[in-house]
Amino acid sequence: MARTGEGVVTDGTSGPVERILKPRSIAVIGATEDRTKFAGRVFHLLLKHGFPGTVYPVNPKRSAVHGISAYPRIAEVPTPTDLAVIAIPKPGVLEAVTACAEAGIGTVIIITSQFSEIGSEGKAQETALVDVARRSEMRILGPNCLGLFSPVHRLVLTSSPALDIDRLTPGPIGFVSQSGALMATVFDRANALGIDFSSCFSVGNQADLEIADFVEYLIQDEATKVICSYVEGFKTPERMLMLAEKARAAGKPWLITKAGRSEASVRAAFSHTASLAGSYAALQAVADRYGIVLMDDPDAMIVLAAALSRFESARIDDVIVVSTSGGCCAIAVDRLADAAIPLSRFRSATTSALAKLYPPAQADNPVDLSGRRAGEIADICEETIEILAGESAQCLVLGLVTTAPALDRIAANLARPAVASRRPHLFVMCPGAAADPARAVMREQGGLYCDRIDDAVRAVRGWLQWSRSPEPTDVAVARPAALPTSAKALVGRYEQGFVDEVRTKSLLGAYAVPVNPTRLAMTKDQALAAADAIGYPVALKAVSEHIVHKSDVGGVALGLADRASVAEAWDRILAGVARHMSPDVLTGMAVQAMAEGEAEVIIGARNDSQFGALVLVGAGGIFVEIAKDVQTALAPATPAEVRRLLQRLRVWPLLEGYRGRGALDVDAVVDIVCRVGWLASDLGDRLGELDLNPVLVARAGRGAVVADARLILA
Amino acid sequence: MARTGEGVVTDGTSGPVERILKPRSIAVIGATEDRTKFAGRVFHLLLKHGFPGTVYPVNPKRSAVHGISAYPRIAEVPTPTDLAVIAIPKPGVLEAVTACAEAGIGTVIIITSQFSEIGSEGKAQETALVDVARRSEMRILGPNCLGLFSPVHRLVLTSSPALDIDRLTPGPIGFVSQSGALMATVFDRANALGIDFSSCFSVGNQADLEIADFVEYLIQDEATKVICSYVEGFKTPERMLMLAEKARAAGKPWLITKAGRSEASVRAAFSHTASLAGSYAALQAVADRYGIVLMDDPDAMIVLAAALSRFESARIDDVIVVSTSGGCCAIAVDRLADAAIPLSRFRSATTSALAKLYPPAQADNPVDLSGRRAGEIADICEETIEILAGESAQCLVLGLVTTAPALDRIAANLARPAVASRRPHLFVMCPGAAADPARAVMREQGGLYCDRIDDAVRAVRGWLQWSRSPEPTDVAVARPAALPTSAKALVGRYEQGFVDEVRTKSLLGAYAVPVNPTRLAMTKDQALAAADAIGYPVALKAVSEHIVHKSDVGGVALGLADRASVAEAWDRILAGVARHMSPDVLTGMAVQAMAEGEAEVIIGARNDSQFGALVLVGAGGIFVEIAKDVQTALAPATPAEVRRLLQRLRVWPLLEGYRGRGALDVDAVVDIVCRVGWLASDLGDRLGELDLNPVLVARAGRGAVVADARLILA
Repeated sequence: MARTGEGVVTDGTSGPVERILKPRSIAVIGATEDRTKFAGRVFHLLLKHGFPGTVYPVNPKRSAVHGISAYPRIAEVPTPTDLAVIAIPKPGVLEAVTACAEAGIGTVIIITSQFSEIGSEGKAQETALVDVARRSEMRILGPNCLGLFSPVHRLVLTSSPALDIDRLTPGPIGFVSQSGALMATVFDRANALGIDFSSCFSVGNQADLEIADFVEYLIQDEATKVICSYVEGFKTPERMLMLAEKARAAGKPWLITKAGRSEASVRAAFSHTASLAGSYAALQAVADRYGIVLMDDPDAMIVLAAALSRFESARIDDVIVVSTSGGCCAIAVDRLADAAIPLSRFRSATTSALAKLYPPAQADNPVDLSGRRAGEIADICEETIEILAGESAQCLVLGLVTTAPALDRIAANLARPAVASRRPHLFVMCPGAAADPARAVMREQGGLYCDRIDDAVRAVRGWLQWSRSPEPTDVAVARPAALPTSAKALVGRYEQGFVDEVRTKSLLGAYAVPVNPTRLAMTKDQALAAADAIGYPVALKAVSEHIVHKSDVGGVALGLADRASVAEAWDRILAGVARHMSPDVLTGMAVQAMAEGEAEVIIGARNDSQFGALVLVGAGGIFVEIAKDVQTALAPATPAEVRRLLQRLRVWPLLEGYRGRGALDVDAVVDIVCRVGWLASDLGDRLGELDLNPVLVARAGRGAVVADARLILA
Repeated sequence: MARTGEGVVTDGTSGPVERILKPRSIAVIGATEDRTKFAGRVFHLLLKHGFPGTVYPVNPKRSAVHGISAYPRIAEVPTPTDLAVIAIPKPGVLEAVTACAEAGIGTVIIITSQFSEIGSEGKAQETALVDVARRSEMRILGPNCLGLFSPVHRLVLTSSPALDIDRLTPGPIGFVSQSGALMATVFDRANALGIDFSSCFSVGNQADLEIADFVEYLIQDEATKVICSYVEGFKTPERMLMLAEKARAAGKPWLITKAGRSEASVRAAFSHTASLAGSYAALQAVADRYGIVLMDDPDAMIVLAAALSRFESARIDDVIVVSTSGGCCAIAVDRLADAAIPLSRFRSATTSALAKLYPPAQADNPVDLSGRRAGEIADICEETIEILAGESAQCLVLGLVTTAPALDRIAANLARPAVASRRPHLFVMCPGAAADPARAVMREQGGLYCDRIDDAVRAVRGWLQWSRSPEPTDVAVARPAALPTSAKALVGRYEQGFVDEVRTKSLLGAYAVPVNPTRLAMTKDQALAAADAIGYPVALKAVSEHIVHKSDVGGVALGLADRASVAEAWDRILAGVARHMSPDVLTGMAVQAMAEGEAEVIIGARNDSQFGALVLVGAGGIFVEIAKDVQTALAPATPAEVRRLLQRLRVWPLLEGYRGRGALDVDAVVDIVCRVGWLASDLGDRLGELDLNPVLVARAGRGAVVADARLILA
């Protein structure tokens, strides 16, 4: 895949995607009038949506298709052609690609499937296509894709029946999808909501052109205000990071729906387009740093994209709920609470103004239009929305519309003042067909809406995430002055595999991470001397590169109060280890001070196969196993990033000091996590796993200390 | 609301709801041809859907409405009329109700709103309506309701425009809704899915007839196979319990969507129909015991109801995913994992059979039709579904349909074999309008489908909950022989308020709940003697009815190893308490054995305002405050119920023994929770709050012991 680097362009006017979107001429291999055929649909849709350039049907069995002269072979098409679409049965694809390459075609879009996604044989066939293309500098989109369509360029090059509609309106959302069916399905729903796209690309198996090529195009495309993508795996993660930075710098929101959060879906995605799904926690860390919004639903992603493009990336703090039905209001408020989306607290001016229209209990958030004092719902919509516009511009007005008499008038009287206020709004049209006329009114008035509370909740959750993402200035990671130049050099002499506690703590010490005083003792006498020097009580632990879980082999004794206890523990540990393995495996025993703290956390580092070093922090003790309360950042991480990680932990209230208990030393934890981040980053490709567990956290100002640690080198 | 008892009927043919559904004659007050008026729509819809009885428009300004002779006043309607609908502006409602009562009308449906839901003035006006009705034994449905409709009885008595459709097909689902708009909105969506109802009732403010009346009717209604309800609060919780038992005995699933899980939605619901939302945990306990399915979405509730009626309450274990798109497949599988819905593991016969159609990695669950070896999706649908029918009948086939060529044929080839197999299935038609023809095919073939993955996930989650609900035989709660006859008598002499640890432990002891040996000492000497008797180490704790949180006032000393430590702790506690309050408030100090265990749990009891005594169990330690990992059952509870509570705790793996650790004494915990349940139940209206915290749980066979306890008496 060495071609990737060549795909990187800075001048958008000459990039591979730009060349696809502005072809002078397009050949459709296998073009026919028969729309049950893939190529038949491609040709039909290309003509239907009024592509302004030249089209060449290529079909040896036809003299003309839809009245346009056909050519028997690509070689006979009169001019060098910019683009060819191959949507013919698989056996003919290699020959067609070869012919296109020989004819000097710029790019081929291969819709035909059953290549690398079905296994090794298909993979070899796909590689053969790429080899042919490379030899003549031809680019490939696909195979196993659904092509693309660009309302902005009046270009439709897809076989999807979802595009067989009368009108295609250009809009501000660019969409790149690793699943063609999903692109078409999402487009179809969005189209019904009046949400429009600049360009949509289905990348298929990414044999050549890949997601990053299209995202890069969309970042510099003036027609695109928000970028959406459906991703199963990143072909070039390092390029993805670069683009995340670029999108962020350009102030252009990038939303990603990522499949493969669960093991089963990784398997589904893997067999689907033959790409590794990668670690979701790593992607979340990337998203956190660059303000990418991760979504779990493509329909909700498009609704959020529409909101961000409509309201120019307005940041929101909380939500005002307005509903035509008390029941729907209660359902929605419960759902918002489930998603931890806060409701706005009204200013007194707002509640006073509402009190003219609603009984006292109702003159508050959520606002139930059906609980009005008098008159019909349609009569008070406008005034209600106007009153609510008096709240902060960072309050999102979420309007829930159920069946009601005069629904069209209600829709108009809700949408008109909401649009006029220029404040963020989102309506949910809850009924089915009964609300279709009201939906049309919404679209006419320019109101933004979706059809389900779920979509709204997901979109709002993502919108809040976007709103809370840090400013670009926050993410410059400054290296503390005192760090050694390279942890990699420090571990240079260690072999791959497990590094014992004493050595791991030395390494931590080099990064000024506080560890409890720990000495290695080879004999019982050394242990007693070390304990005397450290001061009682002490802990005694077996040290061996062959023992990963010390307590599983009886290798730990805690709280030893005197020399006698230390001596007794030495014998006991030795006997315990001997029951599991030869005592020869012991390097010795670690004698260490008993660390104290008010709470335990776990701090660690991992090497993600896609995005490199990660640092993580989580609740310690039984929380590690049971609650899996862990947050992850790209390493190295800034103190601000680490603080956000801590605030997202469920045990954050414990660190912050809850129920009158004092706060713990959060600063000390932040400092350790940052240092571990640098350590992980410095270890580079030697990093396997690093676990500091437990790290004992004392009250504010009293520090935190690593009581146990282990490292696995790659 | 003394009328409630009278509403309870055993003979369904003469109940108040039966009388509403089979009227010989109906008067519509204010009937007009103007459909912008509520009464105009009611009259129009009544005629449109072909009510077979006599209708009387009542309107002093009309001689006829839609060609039917009108009467100026209800008094002049020729015969005693069974039913009257009042949908006129509020000022005329009392007069109309009075006239109906005088005319001997059986039931009035009051659609007009702005009664008790808007506050005390409206409440008084509503009470006046009920008083008038009672004097002549007339029943009221409403006010502030949307009436009802019964496709089974060809009776439509609602003003909702959602019913202005051409055909109303009878179906197996009965629906009672506390929100009229929600009833109509849900009906509209269900109608589009081809899901049909027996009868739907909107109960509004439940001034007289209430949810329970309609649920009771639906339980004995032969046309209804599944009961759905949207509930904000129960007017008569004790009746609801009786009906839950009845529905269960009748084998008729009852699904409830309950608003008011969060505080904000309680407020929304409260102002909406003037009913208390009640405690959600208590309702969950009721649902657990009686196999009621609690849903958080009314649309998903209807989908589940359709599934349970279609597949005759088939129990399911897990899910087989089949998708026309790998992308959609991955999204859905992630979503199922989020909801803890298990995927079926295929038998080897199934994977072998699938391997003929799919590459090896794909011949498994989830099944991605787009990842087939060859041919078009439509060509392999039928064979795939037939292969999957070889799996257990308790595997649900969940089919995801995205845009694709030949979508109609795909829909037919999926639905036909699924329906023929008679196994549980549910399809999701993911696109918007592009799939409408395929939806029609689904309906023709009799395939069950919904439109969104979210609906499917919620429905399946509820279906699993229903499938796992215990058999009716499980819930007979047998009283252990050794319990005292009444805890109420034991606490008879205690005043309302806080009961100290020593007394609370005595009460627990009477119920044979194991507590750590605890003695009350009034003097230091008594404390020393008690400590000697108990054996060291001991704990010393301040005992006072005025100290609720002992540790907040320095009232606890743990792990006292000898007499000197006890003496020192006595003085320290005395001094500590003195800093906060007069030492006179001390009853004395509790001397107790240090309890030991491998884990802490909290066990407690509460009195719910609606459903009475509840018993609860949860994770102890910091989990109590941070993770809020607590489960609740109705008290008294059976050992089987308590075991299910424990299994739902997040810390269950800890109790069960995780990562090679030994199991803890779950039986002992179950026993304590059961005894506390009886204690709570016996305390009856004197129960305020009972907290056993911590309860220390030892390894299996070694018991569990209550280390601290407090009781608040009501």
